[in-house]
Amino acid sequence: MSKGLSTRRLPKSGIYRLALYSRYLSGISKNDDDYISSQELADATGHTAAQVRKDLTWHGGLGEAGKGYEIRKLKTMLTAAFGKERVRNVILVGVGNLGRALISYSGFQLQKFNIIAAFDRDIGKIGTYVEDILVSDIRELDSKIADMEVEIAIVAVPKLSLQQVVNRLVASGIRAILNFAPTLATVPEGIEMQNVDLSIELDRFCYLLEGNS
Amino acid sequence: MSKGLSTRRLPKSGIYRLALYSRYLSGISKNDDDYISSQELADATGHTAAQVRKDLTWHGGLGEAGKGYEIRKLKTMLTAAFGKERVRNVILVGVGNLGRALISYSGFQLQKFNIIAAFDRDIGKIGTYVEDILVSDIRELDSKIADMEVEIAIVAVPKLSLQQVVNRLVASGIRAILNFAPTLATVPEGIEMQNVDLSIELDRFCYLLEGNS
Repeated sequence: MSKGLSTRRLPKSGIYRLALYSRYLSGISKNDDDYISSQELADATGHTAAQVRKDLTWHGGLGEAGKGYEIRKLKTMLTAAFGKERVRNVILVGVGNLGRALISYSGFQLQKFNIIAAFDRDIGKIGTYVEDILVSDIRELDSKIADMEVEIAIVAVPKLSLQQVVNRLVASGIRAILNFAPTLATVPEGIEMQNVDLSIELDRFCYLLEGNS
Repeated sequence: MSKGLSTRRLPKSGIYRLALYSRYLSGISKNDDDYISSQELADATGHTAAQVRKDLTWHGGLGEAGKGYEIRKLKTMLTAAFGKERVRNVILVGVGNLGRALISYSGFQLQKFNIIAAFDRDIGKIGTYVEDILVSDIRELDSKIADMEVEIAIVAVPKLSLQQVVNRLVASGIRAILNFAPTLATVPEGIEMQNVDLSIELDRFCYLLEGNS
């Protein structure tokens, strides 16, 4: 297999770094036609300048000798990489405590995720509303997904149900899944699945608790 | 201010990288008396070898020329850095949907966080149990914290209550706070507060959705 840049995939931690660069750029007081050095981005985000330069080449970002990166170009590049200009309709499967918390979570809206429907298998929940979202029977998933032309699902179901729910979503035309269940599932090639890993936050917290400061 | 290593603090993203190295080491089939190169750790986690070497020096990890790092030493170093050998008692404040989800979240136990008490201000919740955790009146926070000799709190309260709850926790002797509220609060110097940032997971997901693979 070729190891050329074009056929390799940016690892998860690289995406994380790009997101950090993007946040830093949104927060600084410099003008868009100013330049920024890889060293400044490195210092601000806790990486090396070499790492920053390597990461930015993934999206074609090339600094100019002695000047660095034009901020406008970097911002445009990162906005495109994260698709920040568009609203995305998503469905939620699993309306337990976590699912309810996610419906209320303001971050989804900030990031332009728009939850348009929710599904559960619990007869006690079907037909009720959580905020203004109607909870539908999970057995209607196929027909509703077809009607709504939605391709993204957020999943907050119990561990044991995850693979079954994922299979059903994929069969119904869902192309990307954000998984909050504390376990993993397999998806066919071409389907994106991202697992939210709270344990890395707990790791960080443990590290602070050890007095590593 | 000195910029020497000993007085600087490892940035959040550095802690994240150390956690990734630690996970990779727990998963590989090599023996503890084998050696591993910074390049292997870099390739496995999506960083540069220079970044890996720099990160490991924070805890005194020094490779041997031509051999790399002894796996046993690295593991011992990282286990100590994250305090992974000890169980930590914690309290939870806020027993809404997210708080309930956190009580059920298996990851806390895996990471040896033991939720020993929960608090809320809602009279309808006080005196009830979530799993086997009794929900107490938040007005009893002071006396209960003193009785339990607990120093760590997990906070899952509404945005608007966060600063008030944090002030109360600090006044009651809590030294470290893991904040799940989607906003920030200030704490006095010497108190650790970590904010769980779900938006970075959403950023990653957006990135995948843009077909950056």
